[in-house]
Amino acid sequence: MTLQIDSKTIERAAERINAYVHKTPVISSENINSITGAQVFFKCENLQKAGAFKTRGAVNAVFSLSKEELGNGVCTHSSGNHAAALARAASLRNTKAYVVMPDNSSKVKIAAVKNYNGEITFCTPNLASREKTLKAIREKTGATEIHPYNDLRIIAGQATAAKEFFGQIKQLDIVMAPVGGGGLLSGTALSTHFFSPETKVIAAEPKGADDAFRSFYSSNFVPSENPRTIADGLLTSLGSLTFPIIQKYVNSILTVSEESIVEAMKLIWERTKLIVEPSSAVPLAAILENKKGFFQKRVGIIISGGNVDLDNLPWNPALAQP
Amino acid sequence: MTLQIDSKTIERAAERINAYVHKTPVISSENINSITGAQVFFKCENLQKAGAFKTRGAVNAVFSLSKEELGNGVCTHSSGNHAAALARAASLRNTKAYVVMPDNSSKVKIAAVKNYNGEITFCTPNLASREKTLKAIREKTGATEIHPYNDLRIIAGQATAAKEFFGQIKQLDIVMAPVGGGGLLSGTALSTHFFSPETKVIAAEPKGADDAFRSFYSSNFVPSENPRTIADGLLTSLGSLTFPIIQKYVNSILTVSEESIVEAMKLIWERTKLIVEPSSAVPLAAILENKKGFFQKRVGIIISGGNVDLDNLPWNPALAQP
Repeated sequence: MTLQIDSKTIERAAERINAYVHKTPVISSENINSITGAQVFFKCENLQKAGAFKTRGAVNAVFSLSKEELGNGVCTHSSGNHAAALARAASLRNTKAYVVMPDNSSKVKIAAVKNYNGEITFCTPNLASREKTLKAIREKTGATEIHPYNDLRIIAGQATAAKEFFGQIKQLDIVMAPVGGGGLLSGTALSTHFFSPETKVIAAEPKGADDAFRSFYSSNFVPSENPRTIADGLLTSLGSLTFPIIQKYVNSILTVSEESIVEAMKLIWERTKLIVEPSSAVPLAAILENKKGFFQKRVGIIISGGNVDLDNLPWNPALAQP
Repeated sequence: MTLQIDSKTIERAAERINAYVHKTPVISSENINSITGAQVFFKCENLQKAGAFKTRGAVNAVFSLSKEELGNGVCTHSSGNHAAALARAASLRNTKAYVVMPDNSSKVKIAAVKNYNGEITFCTPNLASREKTLKAIREKTGATEIHPYNDLRIIAGQATAAKEFFGQIKQLDIVMAPVGGGGLLSGTALSTHFFSPETKVIAAEPKGADDAFRSFYSSNFVPSENPRTIADGLLTSLGSLTFPIIQKYVNSILTVSEESIVEAMKLIWERTKLIVEPSSAVPLAAILENKKGFFQKRVGIIISGGNVDLDNLPWNPALAQP
């Protein structure tokens, strides 16, 4: 692997996005510390613009493009936060965002894309349909594609969250992120390597969508097939760019049960008064399932986002998702 | 009325509690600003210790007591946040807190009191039973009573929230607080008078519990009788200390429908990713119902607390409260 992101790339990304993203706060809860036995710091990317860390990568990518590249707009396929983040970033540069979304995307995420004037095309919820639909749009509009995670500008943008985190909280023993396509995780691992090399990187993944776990420990790419988890941000497979970075710079990947994810999510809501989406609760779930390994450690968790359908919360049995 | 709280009283309260409370952040949402037409700043007392502004008053009161006064502990009756805040404050001074709670208090609030080692006695949910039960406990234990709001130390403590707010956000045209017993509102009104006299104080109250509204505009104390609102922190009547302060220093009181409270609460959850309790949403509900009066104003809202039963959210029809 030729590493194409160095510390300067991430520093430049941080400068590039600075005016368009929040420096998100870090919070902690005595109660969660006492339950886990660890000292846990939450980096609140749920309070980021458009409600997720995805804003960092999308802004970095869109603001890296020349006026010519932007002329016909940008496009992507995404069921979730990247779609809204890209629509927002495009509107900041007065260009169009064409977004392919599976027709089972959550109402909240569709509304967010519309809110930023993204132009949505719905497709059947599978990768083949997403790619085919996107290809047609790209050919028709000439828009520049910005992949949700398998793009070095996106990875460098996501890396700024961990870089910022290390500036806020010193001497973290461990930094944790959930893993779906691996954009946040690979960025976090790179920033840790460059800016806090003594910190370990531990990823967390739902057992029902454990392609990264299986890829990581077999050293062979394993695609995500029929993933089943309420952590709807973590359904995708690793990418050709994210997987090698994760293999090289991540220390370990832990998988967790759905029950632990719901428990951790509710714990964060109750104790911190912050709304986090299921994907964001996966790292705390991993701590709850492996307390010994985190005992008395200073652990930083990147809370990935806060875009939740409030009418369908996983602990309300009457309304739980199928 | 002899005013017994001056600016020095509030400044001393702020110093007294400083080490034991959070300086809570102020947040805003472009989206809420665009919906309301106002520029709204939320003072996040839901992120306060024990999840509510009540911590300020309770700490100020308990830390105002001498060792002798504390020797037999403190006691109160409260269905809600004051109970947990007092239990926490007592534990900080290594003394006991005896709390009389109605037997229909929410699980979450009972758990919070227990979490801080408060000793709970349950009573029938009416004022006579609360007072009778508390009297028996006071006589048995010799504990010092700390009333939830009709106490100058409590009022001075709650006043520190607005004082802090004015230090964070300059030139507020209006500051808003919900009103139940009037501890937060009278404290807010006093701090505004002393520290930001150009700011108007507007209170907000549910139509279904509008005793403060009726007292304020008739200039006669009207008790709260059979109040019905999901804003469970606002059921109580004004006190003999809070009412005169409110009469003198509050500019107006607006009442709002239950529907507006639920709409405002959900809006805050969705747009700010912060968990606020129904009482906290009452001021935003008043803005939503009276947009003209707030147009282009800089409005500060004190978010009173974030202690919500997550299993029983008001917008989930299947699980809504009766």
